[in-house]
Amino acid sequence: MAAPAQLNVFPVGNYTFGSKPPKFEKDSNVSARMERLKEKYAREGLRRSVDAVLVVHEHGHPHVLVLQMGASFFKLPGGRLRPGEDEAEGLMRKLNGMLAPPTDSMRPDWRIADVLGTWYRPNFEAMMYPYCPAHIARPKEVKRLFLVALPERCYLSVPKNMRLIAVPLFEIYDNVARYGPVISSIPTSLSRWSLSLA
Amino acid sequence: MAAPAQLNVFPVGNYTFGSKPPKFEKDSNVSARMERLKEKYAREGLRRSVDAVLVVHEHGHPHVLVLQMGASFFKLPGGRLRPGEDEAEGLMRKLNGMLAPPTDSMRPDWRIADVLGTWYRPNFEAMMYPYCPAHIARPKEVKRLFLVALPERCYLSVPKNMRLIAVPLFEIYDNVARYGPVISSIPTSLSRWSLSLA
Ligand SMILES: [Zn+2]
Ligand SMILES: [Zn+2]
Ligand SMILES: [Zn+2]
Ligand SMILES: [Zn+2]
Repeated sequence: MAAPAQLNVFPVGNYTFGSKPPKFEKDSNVSARMERLKEKYAREGLRRSVDAVLVVHEHGHPHVLVLQMGASFFKLPGGRLRPGEDEAEGLMRKLNGMLAPPTDSMRPDWRIADVLGTWYRPNFEAMMYPYCPAHIARPKEVKRLFLVALPERCYLSVPKNMRLIAVPLFEIYDNVARYGPVISSIPTSLSRWSLSLA
Repeated sequence: MAAPAQLNVFPVGNYTFGSKPPKFEKDSNVSARMERLKEKYAREGLRRSVDAVLVVHEHGHPHVLVLQMGASFFKLPGGRLRPGEDEAEGLMRKLNGMLAPPTDSMRPDWRIADVLGTWYRPNFEAMMYPYCPAHIARPKEVKRLFLVALPERCYLSVPKNMRLIAVPLFEIYDNVARYGPVISSIPTSLSRWSLSLA
């Protein structure tokens, strides 16, 4: 493939946002989250997770849809796979759980465009890397990032305790302090795509 | 595509490195380079460039091949396209000029695996971004990064004034200060590939 693949991106105004009952995070802070990861790892081993990158445009610039909780916790729609669960199926389950309206017939037609990257958590710590660090035989978590093409129009329902925000690429690029290593890498991973702003 | 594509990566010891006459850079420092870019832009407009990412492995870890000149200037094999030149053809011309042995029959069978990313230089400055920054109608340079699959074995000839070094992913990751924004982003872009260390 000597030319970039093309992704159609639609205006944020094409999407209708509603709300649904809250989905509480199991942990209220990073150290509680790492503690729970540690306990689960002892019982179940490697945590596999999947996240979706959804792109829209606004005033001429591509934006990524990010879930915000509180003032400073950001995450992508997605989450932990069940033991043995297929990645694509798990991603659909998570996307529907987090963003689909409660009525089944209104479920968005999510389409996986491609794998965007794979991230490794070598220790029970917040830092993740886009490769398995040297001499880490057993990472604690492997997260696969998928580019998911949104339909031209759809309804999205957001849990009441979260906000779904559209963040421009220049705001997240290299902004590890605010968005963490995975989200801040999205502009780099997306740059192999030609984004066609419809 | 719900699963990562696979790239076969061979040991660095499979490759035989020789040297050939020097290829001098036209500029001895960044400000001279930017000055020349400015003059060329005035005459020819947008600079289009292509770079190749070549991957090998050593002691079990993937390494990227990088050209080093002097103590602290690093670049990927590649360079500027001629006006109207096709990207894939220009990349082959640059790879052969920089790394193929002088004997035509010994030219490596370079294969473009995929586009890895696209980088934009908004101003006559060293900084580049993996998107066209907001309200930059005319970037000064657009650089396309390609993942190029090396054959299992081949000869590589390096200009005498450069060193070809194999740098592990953990050394370049996020190391903008030493390698600049493009090279330091390679681990992130590569993470969509499953690297199979043969
Ligand atoms: Zn704007
Ligand atoms: Zn905006
Ligand atoms: Zn090692
Ligand atoms: Zn090494």
